[in-house]
Amino acid sequence: MQSPNPPISNVDELLAADNVTAIVALFADAHPADIADALERLTPLKRPQAWTHIPEDIKGEVLAELSEGVFKNLAHELDKGELIDAIKVLDIDDIADLIPDMPEALLADVLFAVDVETRNNLGEVLSYPEDSAGGLMNFDAISVRDNVSLDVVLHYLRLKTSLPDNTDSIFLVDRNKRLTGILPVNILLTAPGGDQAIKYAVESPVSFQCLDSELDVAKAFADYNLVSAPVVDDVGRLLGRITIDDVVDVIRDQAEHDIMAAAGLREEEDIFAPVARTSRSRTIWLAVNLVTALLGSWVIGQFEGSIQKLVALAVLMPIVASMGGNAGTQTLTVVIRGMSLGTISRGNVFNVLKKEALVGILNGIIWAVVIALIAALWYQDVHLGLVIAAAMVANLFMGAIAGVCIPIFLEKMNIDPALAGGVALTTVTDVVGYFSVLGLATLLLL
Amino acid sequence: MQSPNPPISNVDELLAADNVTAIVALFADAHPADIADALERLTPLKRPQAWTHIPEDIKGEVLAELSEGVFKNLAHELDKGELIDAIKVLDIDDIADLIPDMPEALLADVLFAVDVETRNNLGEVLSYPEDSAGGLMNFDAISVRDNVSLDVVLHYLRLKTSLPDNTDSIFLVDRNKRLTGILPVNILLTAPGGDQAIKYAVESPVSFQCLDSELDVAKAFADYNLVSAPVVDDVGRLLGRITIDDVVDVIRDQAEHDIMAAAGLREEEDIFAPVARTSRSRTIWLAVNLVTALLGSWVIGQFEGSIQKLVALAVLMPIVASMGGNAGTQTLTVVIRGMSLGTISRGNVFNVLKKEALVGILNGIIWAVVIALIAALWYQDVHLGLVIAAAMVANLFMGAIAGVCIPIFLEKMNIDPALAGGVALTTVTDVVGYFSVLGLATLLLL
Repeated sequence: MQSPNPPISNVDELLAADNVTAIVALFADAHPADIADALERLTPLKRPQAWTHIPEDIKGEVLAELSEGVFKNLAHELDKGELIDAIKVLDIDDIADLIPDMPEALLADVLFAVDVETRNNLGEVLSYPEDSAGGLMNFDAISVRDNVSLDVVLHYLRLKTSLPDNTDSIFLVDRNKRLTGILPVNILLTAPGGDQAIKYAVESPVSFQCLDSELDVAKAFADYNLVSAPVVDDVGRLLGRITIDDVVDVIRDQAEHDIMAAAGLREEEDIFAPVARTSRSRTIWLAVNLVTALLGSWVIGQFEGSIQKLVALAVLMPIVASMGGNAGTQTLTVVIRGMSLGTISRGNVFNVLKKEALVGILNGIIWAVVIALIAALWYQDVHLGLVIAAAMVANLFMGAIAGVCIPIFLEKMNIDPALAGGVALTTVTDVVGYFSVLGLATLLLL
Repeated sequence: MQSPNPPISNVDELLAADNVTAIVALFADAHPADIADALERLTPLKRPQAWTHIPEDIKGEVLAELSEGVFKNLAHELDKGELIDAIKVLDIDDIADLIPDMPEALLADVLFAVDVETRNNLGEVLSYPEDSAGGLMNFDAISVRDNVSLDVVLHYLRLKTSLPDNTDSIFLVDRNKRLTGILPVNILLTAPGGDQAIKYAVESPVSFQCLDSELDVAKAFADYNLVSAPVVDDVGRLLGRITIDDVVDVIRDQAEHDIMAAAGLREEEDIFAPVARTSRSRTIWLAVNLVTALLGSWVIGQFEGSIQKLVALAVLMPIVASMGGNAGTQTLTVVIRGMSLGTISRGNVFNVLKKEALVGILNGIIWAVVIALIAALWYQDVHLGLVIAAAMVANLFMGAIAGVCIPIFLEKMNIDPALAGGVALTTVTDVVGYFSVLGLATLLLL
């Protein structure tokens, strides 16, 4: 890649060497996103030092590019006046993004510092959920009346010295400000100027309402290859627009969320946060896990007598639990993805359940044969092998059923399946795995 | 969301009712992406039936929007001639995307069916790795000499009837076709036509080389809010361009990959594939898991005598293994994300290791106290509690170390950490968990 900016890699060393000139020179040429990356790579103590060397005019954009955790941390460390100066010049949607992570006192002062129009627009954006189309909305849409000619549109645009970023279309509205179509900007470059704008307009364009989910917005941008799209109110009046740069952030954040949530982490986790804070933030997850692990242990505890008689059970039972957990996690992952992509819906969920259950049984039989052979050879005991085999089939079957049902149930309960699905699933497969090995052995072998 | 197209939800029922008219009407108004979604929701047997009702002129685009697994399946089912007609009219990068999933025979015929220029361009795209900038490249970039005026550029554009999608900039080149700058299209709408193009050009724009990784491309598009960007050869000559719609697909596919890989699944997994195929595709992962589970069992097997003397060990050891696995997975997830986002680099990896090890010890101590109390109360045995506590600290510490070291090691060995990291980590925490509980108990209690 050829980037206009040299990579910023050694801020840490330059700070240590107190080489201010070099840092200032580095930051002077750099893109705000690259400076933000450099800050993220520093330990929290060093970030405020580096901050002082960022050019004043891009400090706000650097803040907007930081991850939530790092911004939160910096917002507490830096001088309030300086923060306000940096933030107040940002685009409204960028300010709105920062607000949930601001300390209360800073928020009040930021709202006081911005001009009246910005404050009103901010109020509107903040009145919608953070993860809605309204929360992504910007107010820099260019709109013209739909009964004008292309020449008039061109003349109007020339009156502006520049167009907002990602302006790939002009929104056409009727006299009541209702959206009637969108005019691709590039038409203005190729079509005869005397033609009516409406002639070239996309007449029923994709548009969003403020309460649409940002995931639906992201899917629509990806499916229909949009660069910008209008947001309208419930009678179709143009309110603002959403642009691809913000949608890309939504898609990346969503991916981040799903991956982090599966390990019980928040997407804002700051890798260089102090040990105590990190430890605390991860504690709840471990507590949940302890409870589920205790449940498994309780099941084992019911069969202490059996284990004492046949220690091989203690050796083999984790295999059955683990295989069930892995097979079930595969089903769970496929189902969660299918739900979030919309491939799985109420109409076909029963097909999915049937199929996954069959896959579970089939894989269960395959691995039952393998484990039966291993167990029978290891302990020279065919009956033990058969018991483990039966438990394996039972647990892979249950893992498949749980893998389909758990995310559907969690979604109904409004619990994020990406967060809670894995832990719920392995609880089921641990309990069923231990219970089927120990229970069957107690019934049949002892 | 207000979409121009009615949602396509009931194709399944319409096929069952043999209501061809309704399906044709549905598909006639629909966006190719929505039709692709509808196909994905059908079982494999029904997809070819639905396919016949898609309007001929968008069949290619529908193919391009399908997920890999579903396309692969359809490509085997459909008539070859029809597939070729659908594919040959697509953009070059879209054809290139489909090629890895085509049957050999189809590929040869597609290459034969396209015109010479397309074939040459395809050859170029295919000569680069699928996950490189070259593989994402399109050949519809508009370039002009850098010494012309804006009026000349405008005149040149007017000669075209329309501009390619996502044309937010025109590329300026010198007489040797070397990229010298990029001219935002919107400048043409606002700046005086007599001015020289170069005056408004971004003079050292972000550009890519063919072998740049697609992940670097995606990060640059996200960081710098790009809509399109040039691809140049090693002496800076313009070869083509990359557009945001393809980058959005890269970002989504990457997220999909990371989530699916963690469960040993391929991102192309077709949720409605036949049971036997799904079962086969998931088998390797279960085989790997069986081997690692056997390793854990082997460790337990070394202490059968100890378990027979003190069955409580069999009850409590899964808790230690599981807590280590969970804490380690948290570290692993943070480190893999940090590596892929570039936050973790060689310069600061030691800081990460130190920090995560401390978090591991701290959390180890917290949960050691809890589990020691539980164990001591459950079995009325303080010494047993102390042994479990010591094992807990050891395993959470090892989980943290492994969580940092495993992804770094895997990356060095060119193995995808998202795929192999989890299974490697839980192997470590299972083995260490069992070994520390049973080993310490054998040494100190028995």
